[in-house]
Amino acid sequence: MGRSEREREHERERAGAGIAIRLFVGAALAAGAPVALDGPQAHYLRNVMRRTAGDRIRLFNGRDGEWTGTIESLSSGRAVVRPETMLKAQMPAPDLWLLFAPLKATPTRFLVEKATELGVGVLRPVICRRSQTRRVNAGRLRAHAIEAAEQCGRLDVPRVEPLSSLDDALAAWPPGRRLLVCDPDARQTAADVLAGGGDSPWAILIGPEGGFAPEERRRLAAHPAAVPARLGPRLLRAETAATAALVCWQALAGDWR
Amino acid sequence: MGRSEREREHERERAGAGIAIRLFVGAALAAGAPVALDGPQAHYLRNVMRRTAGDRIRLFNGRDGEWTGTIESLSSGRAVVRPETMLKAQMPAPDLWLLFAPLKATPTRFLVEKATELGVGVLRPVICRRSQTRRVNAGRLRAHAIEAAEQCGRLDVPRVEPLSSLDDALAAWPPGRRLLVCDPDARQTAADVLAGGGDSPWAILIGPEGGFAPEERRRLAAHPAAVPARLGPRLLRAETAATAALVCWQALAGDWR
Repeated sequence: MGRSEREREHERERAGAGIAIRLFVGAALAAGAPVALDGPQAHYLRNVMRRTAGDRIRLFNGRDGEWTGTIESLSSGRAVVRPETMLKAQMPAPDLWLLFAPLKATPTRFLVEKATELGVGVLRPVICRRSQTRRVNAGRLRAHAIEAAEQCGRLDVPRVEPLSSLDDALAAWPPGRRLLVCDPDARQTAADVLAGGGDSPWAILIGPEGGFAPEERRRLAAHPAAVPARLGPRLLRAETAATAALVCWQALAGDWR
Repeated sequence: MGRSEREREHERERAGAGIAIRLFVGAALAAGAPVALDGPQAHYLRNVMRRTAGDRIRLFNGRDGEWTGTIESLSSGRAVVRPETMLKAQMPAPDLWLLFAPLKATPTRFLVEKATELGVGVLRPVICRRSQTRRVNAGRLRAHAIEAAEQCGRLDVPRVEPLSSLDDALAAWPPGRRLLVCDPDARQTAADVLAGGGDSPWAILIGPEGGFAPEERRRLAAHPAAVPARLGPRLLRAETAATAALVCWQALAGDWR
């Protein structure tokens, strides 16, 4: 980055400094083009954060970068914000998928929140044979992802894919994408696998609390994309294992480098 | 590990297989020497897990390895367990400290739980100038650490140090131990720092949500042990940053290798 580009970035940072509220919207963002917020966002601004017309917030939509905006009008069910200055240009999100066996509500929330903070691109719940939890509320997963994206400064929200079985996911696996299978019995560590992972896109698979069933193990062992990897000698909860694998990927193959 | 040692390990694993309950005790563990459990543990075995005399559990105390034991007697406030077979010999815990600015109850619990699962040796709460939370309940921290250690298969419980100020911790810093300071503005990544970290012992420092105060920054910059490092381009919550730094350490310098 040249010196002038760094100066421009600092200018943008100053423009956004002190604006604590950051909202994800569906509408296009362009200077001067008013954006209508939805009812819950209007409620949040007015009743939770006690903002009024004239106050400034930050907006992003996953396509047009991050903007400052001034609240033009604010009533109980509706708010209009006018974007002013682009703070950050849109950047592509890391091309990383997380496949996970659904957990109970609290650890699922945790997993979605941490995965979003850690920059995952796609969240994909997969039912395994030993899954205790066999449903997900996709709307709730997306709401957790939006909230975490608003708070961590991401310019997009991870895509939440519909629930499928692990078998179906493996049967229709896209060519070229490697699958890191977290497995305490694997010979290689996640760091070894990812440090030598080259530039191919990756997905991470976290099985259910009870582990993979023998048939799933055989299927994974025979799958051309699957690479088993372990995450240390201690037993990690599923949501901790997901977090740990995402950190390894980001640190060794992702955008933390 | 020789083949016979691996066979013995498999034998031990079979001896412990299917014994789900794993308790941390203070008493010494030796074959045949009865161990008295405390009131809450007796309550847990009897009323929560519905165990009775004759059932088997696993025991560890941080010194004598992990043992199977049979419940000899169990009443509402008292239980006696007789250790039988050593499943795992005691191993030293990773020599890693985590210094953290105290958070609210839920994220603190999360941080202690994840740090324990990830093998931290010492948990040390430090008050920073911008800390919102200025107290910790040391008993509760230790209870969270014990519960997490029981569940993740550790052979010890991380030591919880008394609360101090960051200034005092830095003033009395032990020679030879390096301090990874998580700082979004650092030039080097945590992976770069740790991959070249050699064999010196490490501590990790996670500041408060509001970041370090200018005076703390100056002090850290001048401290011979402190090495600033960043954890990617997104804003991580304090407990996520702690988890991420611990994963980087384990994967690159700790016992995951």
